Formats: sequence, C-alpha cells, structure tokens
Amino acid sequence: MSLVRVHNFSISLDGFGAGEGQQLDAPFSHAGSRLMEWAIGTRTFREMGMPGESEPSFGVDDAFASRTGPGVGAEIMGRNKFGPQRGPWKDEEWKGWWGDNPVFHTPVIVLTHHPRPVLEMEGGTTFHFVDADPVAALDQARTLAGDLDIRIGGGVRTVRQFLEADLIDHLHLVLVPIVLGRGERLWEGLEGLEQSFDVEATPSPSGVIHLVFTRRKAR
Amino acid sequence: MSLVRVHNFSISLDGFGAGEGQQLDAPFSHAGSRLMEWAIGTRTFREMGMPGESEPSFGVDDAFASRTGPGVGAEIMGRNKFGPQRGPWKDEEWKGWWGDNPVFHTPVIVLTHHPRPVLEMEGGTTFHFVDADPVAALDQARTLAGDLDIRIGGGVRTVRQFLEADLIDHLHLVLVPIVLGRGERLWEGLEGLEQSFDVEATPSPSGVIHLVFTRRKAR
Repeated sequence: MSLVRVHNFSISLDGFGAGEGQQLDAPFSHAGSRLMEWAIGTRTFREMGMPGESEPSFGVDDAFASRTGPGVGAEIMGRNKFGPQRGPWKDEEWKGWWGDNPVFHTPVIVLTHHPRPVLEMEGGTTFHFVDADPVAALDQARTLAGDLDIRIGGGVRTVRQFLEADLIDHLHLVLVPIVLGRGERLWEGLEGLEQSFDVEATPSPSGVIHLVFTRRKAR
Repeated sequence: MSLVRVHNFSISLDGFGAGEGQQLDAPFSHAGSRLMEWAIGTRTFREMGMPGESEPSFGVDDAFASRTGPGVGAEIMGRNKFGPQRGPWKDEEWKGWWGDNPVFHTPVIVLTHHPRPVLEMEGGTTFHFVDADPVAALDQARTLAGDLDIRIGGGVRTVRQFLEADLIDHLHLVLVPIVLGRGERLWEGLEGLEQSFDVEATPSPSGVIHLVFTRRKAR
C-alpha cells in the first residue's frame, strides 16, 4: 500500500505551524519567511524556483527537502494553502500562489466547502476542489495517484486533521528555534500522538532540527 | 558577574513543562515521569538518590545532567516545586519532596506569597521563603551565593517569569518527543525570545533533544 507522507512541515518551539493573519501579500502571516528560511536555502527549493542569493545548501536540509517529490502521485492540501480567500469563491481567477506551472506536477486535491471545476495547469498539475473528510479525500487521492504515495501538503489544520484521523505514515517536521507566540498550533488535540510513532531527531548546522515520525505499525 | 542558569528543564513537543493536576502523590501531574525519564536514567541523578533499575547512563544525557550542581551557590524555585500546597501554609510540617538531606546543599529561595521562617535541613540546604519579584529574589540569591552562579530551579511559571524579566544567561531545555496535550506552557508570552539567545541542539540516543540557549550579549 502506498504511504501517506508529510514533508518539510516547519513548526516553532511553541508549536505553531503558521502565524496569525494570512493575507495575499503574507502567505505565512506574521511569521513571514522565518519558518521556511531553512528550506529557501536548499538546492531543492531553489530548483523549484524559490528566490535566494546565497549559495544553495546541499547538506542535511537539502537531503530532507529532496525527498518531497519523488514517489508522490498526488497531494492533498487545505484551502488556506491554496489561497487567502475565505468563504464562497468570488470569482475563479485565483489559481494558487505558484504561477502557471505550479511546483506539484501531479493532481492536487484542495479541501474546500466550496467546490469549483477542476483547474488544469501547465506541467501536469491539476487542482481538484473537493468537499470531503480526510478518509474520503484520501480515497480520491489514491485513485488519482495510482500506486504512488500521497503527500499531505498542509496547512496546519489539514495536517492536524489527518493526524487526528490516524492516516499519516511518515511525518517530517522541522523544528525552527523561534518562539512565534501566536498562530495555528499543530499539536492541539493530539495528546499521546507519540504512542503511534517512532521519532528520530537530526539537528542541522542551519539551526533547525529535523524530526521524523515513522508509524510503528502498518495498518 | 555570576550567571543565572536553568538546567534539565524538560518540555514536551507541545511546549508543556508540567502536566495538569499536581498532587502530593503526583508531583509531575498527569505527565507522570515521562518528562524526566531521560534524567532518571543518568548516573548523576542516580547518585542524587533517584531510584532506577537499569544500568546508569554515562553519555550525553549524563553530560548535561552533571552540570546541574557545580558552580551553583543558590537556587531559586517556585512554591509549586517545593510542594503541592496552595494558599496560606496550614502548618509548617512540609519540608519539600527531598527528605531530611535535600539534593541542593546550598541556600534555596522558595518564592511564595506566604513567607515562613528559614528552614535548615541536613547537608547544607536552607530554604528561604520569600515574597519577591524576580529581580529582588535574584538580588537576595546573589547575596546568599557569594561569587557562585544562581540556578533557577522551576517550575514552569518561575522559569517563564525569569525569562520574561530577561534575567537568564544559560537555559538548558530537554525536548521530550511526546505530546502532553495539557498543563503549563513554558513559551506563553515569550514571543521573539530567540532574538536574545544562540540556540544549539543535540539529540540523544535516549530520544530526547538537548537545547542550549546562550545569551547573546552580556548585560
């Protein structure tokens, strides 16, 4: 059976996966780029088009980042990752943060209470707007992905919902040593989560700590 | 100037330094011993009288634990570390969790709104019950400690108050990979704390991650 994976999911010391106040010009809200700086520096993210001036890093941060795409046949994301709009779509002009040729190159399920037609982009990315619970969304993603794995792309609430539903096999978190103070908490409602996972920690010279949660038992 | 230090302060992934519901038979509340298991296994804690059956560990966990005592001339602790009582003392029979010869062997300031006479124990520990803010308590501790360092011994609220007051020079946290779900949060109100500290992370084979915060600038 294919795996359900989370990659490069940054959290602060106080457990926030996003700050407060997402807007069109602030997709990560008051956190700014602080949660993603480790990734922006990697060769993998640079090759996906992330701007940056320093020499790309090719060490442990890149080793983790480079595993994001291979073997993945579909992503599931929350609507807040797709865009800053809330409620019914005012128009269907918004096509995500990623330009005409998004970085996914696979089908992407966007969880929303406000479905709209499938959006075909360049480079193989198709956005499917689906009103479904995690189990049903995962079923649909598996159909789209064939034998390949499913990536849960975030945001915070979406990852938390899939953890609550006990659907994640591989969880790669990146602990960023900052105290964000406010925003969306990843761990809310997940007391005892560690009982289902082995956890491995690897510090990076960049200052972050990679945490890999691996499910103890196959379902 | 002597340093103000915190040692062996365990927190969960979700940032709790203690669980919910401290009682006489549950000093760490619903967290039980889970936050302190890494320490219980070390040679340093065994020699302080901590019970345990496994061979004591002498690796990185012990390396950190062994630095708790040397160079420290006084500890400051919150009343909740001293005992489970709240409000005025019903009697003065309670002498802490640590028996007749407590592990401190120095003066210890117990922060409380309900002062009581100095309590002299065997082995050099004296408990001073003081109603003071962090700055005043630290002044008093320095007088008691001479040229030696001051250890802030916890609990959570006490460490947080000293961090808020910008009085900590060295903060050793131990991140335990569990999701505790409820209890006392260390990071509450400390947004941006990382701006004052360099942070170093070291994972241990026991599964915990040692985090050392070192103040950037001398005051």
